[in-house]
Amino acid sequence: MHSFKELSELFEQHFTGRQFPAQPEHLYNAAQYILSIGGKRIRPVLVFMGNELFDELHPDALHVAQAIELFHNFTLIHDDIMDKAPLRRGKATVHKTYGESTALLAGDVVLVQAYEQLTKVRSSILPNLLTLFNKTAKEVCEGQQLDMDFEQKEQVAIDEYTEMIALKTSVLLAGSLQMGAVIGGAGLGNQQHLYAFGKNLGIAFQIQDDYLDVFGDPAKFGKQRGGDIIANKKTFLQIHATTHATGADQQALNYWMKEQPEQPDEKIAAVTDIFRRTGADAWANGLKEQYYRKAIEHLDAIAVVSSRKNELRNLAEFLMMREH
Amino acid sequence: MHSFKELSELFEQHFTGRQFPAQPEHLYNAAQYILSIGGKRIRPVLVFMGNELFDELHPDALHVAQAIELFHNFTLIHDDIMDKAPLRRGKATVHKTYGESTALLAGDVVLVQAYEQLTKVRSSILPNLLTLFNKTAKEVCEGQQLDMDFEQKEQVAIDEYTEMIALKTSVLLAGSLQMGAVIGGAGLGNQQHLYAFGKNLGIAFQIQDDYLDVFGDPAKFGKQRGGDIIANKKTFLQIHATTHATGADQQALNYWMKEQPEQPDEKIAAVTDIFRRTGADAWANGLKEQYYRKAIEHLDAIAVVSSRKNELRNLAEFLMMREH
Repeated sequence: MHSFKELSELFEQHFTGRQFPAQPEHLYNAAQYILSIGGKRIRPVLVFMGNELFDELHPDALHVAQAIELFHNFTLIHDDIMDKAPLRRGKATVHKTYGESTALLAGDVVLVQAYEQLTKVRSSILPNLLTLFNKTAKEVCEGQQLDMDFEQKEQVAIDEYTEMIALKTSVLLAGSLQMGAVIGGAGLGNQQHLYAFGKNLGIAFQIQDDYLDVFGDPAKFGKQRGGDIIANKKTFLQIHATTHATGADQQALNYWMKEQPEQPDEKIAAVTDIFRRTGADAWANGLKEQYYRKAIEHLDAIAVVSSRKNELRNLAEFLMMREH
Repeated sequence: MHSFKELSELFEQHFTGRQFPAQPEHLYNAAQYILSIGGKRIRPVLVFMGNELFDELHPDALHVAQAIELFHNFTLIHDDIMDKAPLRRGKATVHKTYGESTALLAGDVVLVQAYEQLTKVRSSILPNLLTLFNKTAKEVCEGQQLDMDFEQKEQVAIDEYTEMIALKTSVLLAGSLQMGAVIGGAGLGNQQHLYAFGKNLGIAFQIQDDYLDVFGDPAKFGKQRGGDIIANKKTFLQIHATTHATGADQQALNYWMKEQPEQPDEKIAAVTDIFRRTGADAWANGLKEQYYRKAIEHLDAIAVVSSRKNELRNLAEFLMMREH
């Protein structure tokens, strides 16, 4: 069994270098560009960890890890087009660099490349993995659509928002783990517990992300505090506050959610105060704790010797303790 | 063995009705919309014909036929976004109806649905079919990129243009036939001849398409004559004329290729005359004939009783005889 760091390095060894042909140059340079921007490679490591929970690392895990990371990058290219985002991890997005048409097509070709990696696994588990992959891929698209739909809605219920977050981000984490488990030869019951671990952990992670954006230490978080508030983004905190604010707070929140001041400090301070007064911060921490506990319950329920679970338990703890 | 018409009806029986879930509504309505616009369903019928050339129709042919038609519709959605096309078969395009972001995402989900159909085939041929499908999918993307690249180029050689056409349109026809052949249990040699038949026929078809746009009978062709000339599109005729025109014709062609007159009749007449004087019309007919003959040679070389080839021979003749 290997640590997160070791698995992440193993993945990078196989993922650096050009993944695409030379020609047509624009198309494949654009596809390669998104991969070169890098990232934490959490999802491919989850494939490895799902495999190692049940058995020695199998070569198929490397194919699936690459398929998953390629899929993730496909979603980044297309999401950035839809969101008209100029930057991704501090670098110009693909469509800003290569134009929207080539970026769109590069996204398509990265998705096909993901399926090409998947096709390399031994044929006995191929149908199972493909079915899981397709289900996950559709759910991620559904999550992105709901996210766009919610931008147009005045009010979104917390359950709807949680469902959107689960589809848009958690199911890919959960699916990565489950595909690893399939490679490791896990039975369906164990696969499902591991999937539920990943799904609940993913939601807890997003709640934490929303929380840190407002209440985190900017020096540690690495982003400007209040970015979601400036962008009028729906978040766990924002939805809770909108539902629970009354009187002057309700009016102020409505006002600020439509306001785009050039100097945003006053807005951030005002909305943060409303979040505090409505108890959104304590509520979010409690909710995160609930999802985290649920995740750990599912990890506990997996029928393998407890020591094999150490790396996943460490990862979950690390993700929840983070201040950035 | 069945006729084109019978196979086309068989396909429609299974392809009508909603292919997608109800929710998220915008996403899946957009995906369903492109399917409802219809089309000639040539590619799924080619899957059936490829199967029937070697054996009785197998249920897998229906899965693959649907996968191919879904893939084709995915390319239509994304190509229309890239081309900023307002209309597709006389109806508003998906992005005009649902917006660019939802159209982009709907294209993605239609592609995933194609893979989902493919996943249903028996596992003994799944790896082979997936590999073929992925190869074809990447080539179609490459063709679209080259097409966009060529728009920016002053001069394109006939070989480059033919390669682009082969990737953008022919390989999907050829791949459909070969995937049918795999389902029918054909050996690799026969598969390759059938693929080459489809690829050469596809190029012949495109030459004919370019020819009919200028010299066809508008009443039969169903489109305005000279549409490609108005749009300054590179075609087999245009590239031949650009290479062979001299003196005043060369100057006139250069002039018209940059001109966008409100009344295009004069432009169409002038360019058509240059095509005639440079012999582009006779040259195109000869080139079409060459590709058609090559296609038939490959069909002849397939090692099955000749009578099994009748439907494909009829189809090829019909496509070459068409005036529309």
